[in-house]
Amino acid sequence: MTMKTVGILGGGQLARMMVLAGAPLGLRFELFDPAADACGAQLAPLQVAAFEDEAALAAFAARVDVVTFDFENVPAHSARFLAARVPVHPHPDALAVAQDRLSEKTLFQQLGIPLPPFADIRSRDELAARVAEFGMPCIVKTRRLGYDGKGQFRIRSAADIDAAWATLGDYVEKTGLILEGFVAFDREVSVVAVRGRDGEFRAWPVTGNWHVDGVLSASLAPAQLSPALHERAIGHARALAERLDYVGVFALELFCRGDELLVNEMAPRVHNSGHWTIEGSETSQFENHLRAVLGLPLGDTRMLGHACMLNWLGAMPEAAAVLGQPGGHWHDYGKQPRAGRKVGHATLRDADAQALADALDAVGAQLDRTAQVAPLIAALRS
Amino acid sequence: MTMKTVGILGGGQLARMMVLAGAPLGLRFELFDPAADACGAQLAPLQVAAFEDEAALAAFAARVDVVTFDFENVPAHSARFLAARVPVHPHPDALAVAQDRLSEKTLFQQLGIPLPPFADIRSRDELAARVAEFGMPCIVKTRRLGYDGKGQFRIRSAADIDAAWATLGDYVEKTGLILEGFVAFDREVSVVAVRGRDGEFRAWPVTGNWHVDGVLSASLAPAQLSPALHERAIGHARALAERLDYVGVFALELFCRGDELLVNEMAPRVHNSGHWTIEGSETSQFENHLRAVLGLPLGDTRMLGHACMLNWLGAMPEAAAVLGQPGGHWHDYGKQPRAGRKVGHATLRDADAQALADALDAVGAQLDRTAQVAPLIAALRS
Ligand SMILES: Nc1ncnc2c1ncn2[C@@H]1O[C@H](COP(=O)(O)OP(=O)(O)OP(=O)(O)O)[C@@H](O)[C@H]1O
Ligand SMILES: Nc1ncnc2c1ncn2[C@@H]1O[C@H](COP(=O)(O)OP(=O)(O)OP(=O)(O)O)[C@@H](O)[C@H]1O
Repeated sequence: MTMKTVGILGGGQLARMMVLAGAPLGLRFELFDPAADACGAQLAPLQVAAFEDEAALAAFAARVDVVTFDFENVPAHSARFLAARVPVHPHPDALAVAQDRLSEKTLFQQLGIPLPPFADIRSRDELAARVAEFGMPCIVKTRRLGYDGKGQFRIRSAADIDAAWATLGDYVEKTGLILEGFVAFDREVSVVAVRGRDGEFRAWPVTGNWHVDGVLSASLAPAQLSPALHERAIGHARALAERLDYVGVFALELFCRGDELLVNEMAPRVHNSGHWTIEGSETSQFENHLRAVLGLPLGDTRMLGHACMLNWLGAMPEAAAVLGQPGGHWHDYGKQPRAGRKVGHATLRDADAQALADALDAVGAQLDRTAQVAPLIAALRS
Repeated sequence: MTMKTVGILGGGQLARMMVLAGAPLGLRFELFDPAADACGAQLAPLQVAAFEDEAALAAFAARVDVVTFDFENVPAHSARFLAARVPVHPHPDALAVAQDRLSEKTLFQQLGIPLPPFADIRSRDELAARVAEFGMPCIVKTRRLGYDGKGQFRIRSAADIDAAWATLGDYVEKTGLILEGFVAFDREVSVVAVRGRDGEFRAWPVTGNWHVDGVLSASLAPAQLSPALHERAIGHARALAERLDYVGVFALELFCRGDELLVNEMAPRVHNSGHWTIEGSETSQFENHLRAVLGLPLGDTRMLGHACMLNWLGAMPEAAAVLGQPGGHWHDYGKQPRAGRKVGHATLRDADAQALADALDAVGAQLDRTAQVAPLIAALRS
């Protein structure tokens, strides 16, 4: 293999972990990010420019062999501008679908993947009418540019309609709005999967996820799911990837309610709920994303025991509590602390579910984070 | 943990793999190497200077929190110069012992670790006398600066004494010479182990190694060794580490002949025979070296199944043959090809020894390297 250079739009922790996974494949990287302090820049050259800056994009395209993303909200136009100059994976069309909640939900519907009711909202009256139709609670979300639960408003009573409109009404023009029925889910799961340039498809075991205030707090793999639901979830991911002719890693987030699986959204990139794959599976999501993008054979997605992931938001806790556990692994993204910011994560891995629960117990106690580890321990001990 | 910067003397593939292992711990790195094209520089800032350049060393010391090595032949004086300014692990005294075959063998002897006969050689007459004493075959080696079988001459018949002297006699002044008895070993093994700043000691399972022309060609872990020999080997490594008050990872290379274990040498750094630990064990040698050097808790050294490593010398073969195998992992050091140069390695890992043998079979056939994989397959199928 001649030395290839991979360009990544976005230079955050996902880019950083791609660089760490790609260096052993003999890859070089160039990052592109508007923020000069993007944490991937500690490991690869960074071009600081706006995603709309065509001169910068053209120069970037000239320096790389292939382009991919650590950030899905790159303007579709910029992705297409690059695709006219250098191969871009996933394809800008797939990115465009995933960027817009209305188009992704419409596609899920076409594919026969069940999902909560949804409607495009263009006025306060339309919002009120649809709330009446869907029933409460329900959720208004911006169509575009939402992440980590941002740009959402929950409507619990008729009085919330005005408050929702006061908060998000302005977004009708900028990003569009949709209304979604609320799902009283038993649990949330995600499929992290990869599709190669030749169409080969592989998925990691389905992951169970716990969110706090709309942000991922913890994941557990494999998810506690019946074999039938497990297969169905992966089937949905496969159908989606094939329809989009998707290349690379993506995540499909699902709500699980009894025997039902309802899709929430897709993320057209490596995903926080797949971070456990670094230590917990034969091939990490980061490595397989690069293998896919470069047309290399995909790696095995089998698990090595049980794995769970704890997100660190705001500031890093003391590493020793995790590093002192057998199977404890640490991921500090090298970022400055800031309220709510994803600054790192920990993965705990063990062949034995009980040993993993015990390790989590110890970590929760030492770091004073018993609430964060509690649902994982309950799932492992059930 | 506040962001620490680790300085590494030597910026080759070992430094590169340390950077990859250390970034998730939130570490930053600075490399120091006389070669401007050192492959670690693709991932961390490199200071290009001679190891004897005290101004450069002082500036380097001022930029880092702790210093370690990817290369053991750094002048002991330079290591001590740094140690006067910043913590250096392993300690320069341990480095000095390991740099000199005479002093390391003398130490092994003091510790009661069996080894082949050896003698310091200062003249041709002394060489002839010792050859007569040890019997043939035997091996002349430079005391210092040998690596990958360089600076060695095998004496098979009396006529070789003159040839050996003609080749190595000049080194008496520069590096010193020793003569070693030749060991008709059944196999070669190594212990890769780590010792923390608090004295905690951990070893990975003993590794079996195959050399070609004095250079490591392939490794297999765990080595096919009786439990008693396995424990004895690790006991030797522990005794050595404790005597040297060693901090960090090191390797102890041993010859195995029947029920005997004879020590060959120690390497005071992460070691080629420990590369399999990246995928094959809970914590890699690179991560544990950094944990030790920084005073963090040491990670578990348990294996995840069976693992083997194939060295790539000269130029990288086609990656797809390895990446197409379940459990196949690729390590391209990003170096320019050059005859005999260590440019990369592959690791194959599997819970099942037979599946691993089958994967090796396929790789050997596809890459036309059946000779390199043959001893591993034989060991796995035995
Ligand atoms: N329709 C819904 N019913 C019930 N809960 C919901 C619904 N929509 C969102 N949530 C809750 O809020 C969380 C975040 O919502 P969503 O995935 O839409 O946000 P996002 O901003 O796209 O976040 P990210 O992409 O980071 O996951 C979900 O994981 C879920 O816990
Ligand atoms: N005394 C000996 N008897 C038998 N074989 C030997 C002896 N010394 C060296 N060899 C063979 O040569 C190989 C390289 O020797 P040695 O370890 O001394 O070299 P080196 O230059 O220090 O290499 P490295 O540090 O890279 O392992 C050994 O692994 C072994 O295969």
